[in-house]
Amino acid sequence: MEVYFDNSATTRTFPEVAELMARIMCEDYGNPSSMHMKGVQAEQYVRYAKETLARILKVSEKEILFTSGGTEADNLALIGCALANARRGNHLITTQIEHPAVLQTMHHLEEQGYRVTYLPVNEYGQIRLEDLHRAMTPETILVSIMHTNNEIGALQPVAEAGALIKRMNPNTLFHVDAVQGFGKARIYPRKMNIDLMSVSGHKIHGPKGVGFLYVGEKVKIHPIAFGGGQQQNLRSGTENVPGIAGLAKAAEILYKDFDEDIARICECKRRFMDGIRKMDNVVINGLLPGEPGGEGTAPHIVSVSFRGVRSEVLLHTLEEKEIYVSAGSACSSHKPQPSATLKAIGVDKDLLDATIRFSFSVFTTPEEVDVCLQVLYDRIPMLRKYSRR
Amino acid sequence: MEVYFDNSATTRTFPEVAELMARIMCEDYGNPSSMHMKGVQAEQYVRYAKETLARILKVSEKEILFTSGGTEADNLALIGCALANARRGNHLITTQIEHPAVLQTMHHLEEQGYRVTYLPVNEYGQIRLEDLHRAMTPETILVSIMHTNNEIGALQPVAEAGALIKRMNPNTLFHVDAVQGFGKARIYPRKMNIDLMSVSGHKIHGPKGVGFLYVGEKVKIHPIAFGGGQQQNLRSGTENVPGIAGLAKAAEILYKDFDEDIARICECKRRFMDGIRKMDNVVINGLLPGEPGGEGTAPHIVSVSFRGVRSEVLLHTLEEKEIYVSAGSACSSHKPQPSATLKAIGVDKDLLDATIRFSFSVFTTPEEVDVCLQVLYDRIPMLRKYSRR
Repeated sequence: MEVYFDNSATTRTFPEVAELMARIMCEDYGNPSSMHMKGVQAEQYVRYAKETLARILKVSEKEILFTSGGTEADNLALIGCALANARRGNHLITTQIEHPAVLQTMHHLEEQGYRVTYLPVNEYGQIRLEDLHRAMTPETILVSIMHTNNEIGALQPVAEAGALIKRMNPNTLFHVDAVQGFGKARIYPRKMNIDLMSVSGHKIHGPKGVGFLYVGEKVKIHPIAFGGGQQQNLRSGTENVPGIAGLAKAAEILYKDFDEDIARICECKRRFMDGIRKMDNVVINGLLPGEPGGEGTAPHIVSVSFRGVRSEVLLHTLEEKEIYVSAGSACSSHKPQPSATLKAIGVDKDLLDATIRFSFSVFTTPEEVDVCLQVLYDRIPMLRKYSRR
Repeated sequence: MEVYFDNSATTRTFPEVAELMARIMCEDYGNPSSMHMKGVQAEQYVRYAKETLARILKVSEKEILFTSGGTEADNLALIGCALANARRGNHLITTQIEHPAVLQTMHHLEEQGYRVTYLPVNEYGQIRLEDLHRAMTPETILVSIMHTNNEIGALQPVAEAGALIKRMNPNTLFHVDAVQGFGKARIYPRKMNIDLMSVSGHKIHGPKGVGFLYVGEKVKIHPIAFGGGQQQNLRSGTENVPGIAGLAKAAEILYKDFDEDIARICECKRRFMDGIRKMDNVVINGLLPGEPGGEGTAPHIVSVSFRGVRSEVLLHTLEEKEIYVSAGSACSSHKPQPSATLKAIGVDKDLLDATIRFSFSVFTTPEEVDVCLQVLYDRIPMLRKYSRR
């Protein structure tokens, strides 16, 4: 029995999505920029996708800009905003535990002469609003805060941060990296004062190579690549029609029976955490006090440190049993280095290297949880003995 | 009978490609950055794709960098090269008839302080090597010349230009936009002194939303987006594994029976041009003298001006008969403006707006050509009468 618990790295595409995409590729393969029927047809898929996503987010379809994924969406939001607003100020704020697509882009902007404040987080991986308050200056053009942390599942106080930012400076733009949050939470940019929001297709059972950036109607950003002027001149290049349609289809499926699906994932998460707690010398990272079921963290991510067991060894031990997990995050491309997130929340130094991320999805079953727990019960004592030698 | 003659805008995906992609999405859906089996499996698809493309181009698989399409490949080549080589000089050379993905990126670089020379073309749409020779300065860091023009099918003297550039300044990099040429011609970057070359998936019966940039081993470019550090830190973002595998599969199919396939397309083109020549007041644009079969132009593109007929009207007339063509190029996103290419080759002013591009593919049959010709014979006289009123 294959147990895929690495859904924060990427997800299995819904079969309906793959079927739709194959049909578009082989039959309705027009270029949306073409003036004939085949082009119009292709454009309709793009329009329908925008409408679907706009309905889910309660925004206008004009505010959906398709990209090649979460990384491009983050880059376009940050660099595009910095370029468009350079005259108003040169200060940006983010957190210490963002995804590299935000952190590395911020480093790039620092090289370009922008000043960036990296907010610390508490032991639960959350920023403090007073830190944000203190960091805001009249020069602050953008605040970028992730919705859901990809390593420990911490949820940021996005709505509160949005309200605070707009109260202090209505001109400061608010970007939210929702790559791990979209599909797992109800996110309403307008209600939450979000100006820009990044989403990736392959984290929500949609295709790889496609994502979108929500760009509020009144928000001005500059393009970061140039060409045929597609998508209101903000993102040139022939629209990835099958990918775009597939992304929207995946979102549609996820938000159809949303509450039931999330309840089921939460049930699996609780079952898993209860099972983990039966073991000695384990720590579930980032859990909020008084919330043993992980109510205040993402429904699909559990980060566990197994004292005395090297995460890489455990990963491969589980792999032998067809259980797939992650040591840290998969987003950093084979560079096994201490996780900035785990360090930022103050995980013991000797646990940094003993931490595994288990991440679930709508496909996850209680049986899979039990299989994984049983393998952990069987193997962890042996692995500990081994590592002590 | 549907007749799709807009293959330079985009192509029908090979069914084998769509099937492969659907399988990868639903079964082998891992993230190449994941350390477990599912990740390794995904990485193998990427590696196999690189090997396939490298074999076709006779280059090393390390020199293949996947992007979200031709536009990103062009942007990465031009901006990435300009950033990496700014210390050596600030001059770039290109032609007046490049795709907007090159032209607009060059305009952007001009705004950043770079100096750009736009080479003119002769009436066949080809640059003159002496113009290139004259434009080269010790400050020239990059020359970008398209392989095949997307509107009239003109082929540039790429190999000769490459040799000239390297003779004059071995440090000057040579970029070739081969979006319309790859799959239709045998292109060997090393033999042709090409340092950077852009290719798009959806122009070769592969998927939309994916392309690649050939980057010669010793060529230094900077990334234009930032994140997880995938692809040697030059192009961050989870690799679009299904798209990458699909792109390589399409290339593999196209280069399998390459000579036979191209001969068949050329036969259709010749048949079409012979038929066009039977009409009055038509001009086939960019044909080389003494090459009535269009031997010196791309096998798949025929640009025809029908005097006295507005191209948009003809486009929709053909559309009614399920014949799909392009008025100018589809790459400029619904902005019907006089084509820079047609102007550059000196097309009569009153023909600029009377020009249709017919573009073929491996799927094109002589029957389709005949159907299209018959509709033209039937309708053009009436359209001319109409437009005279």
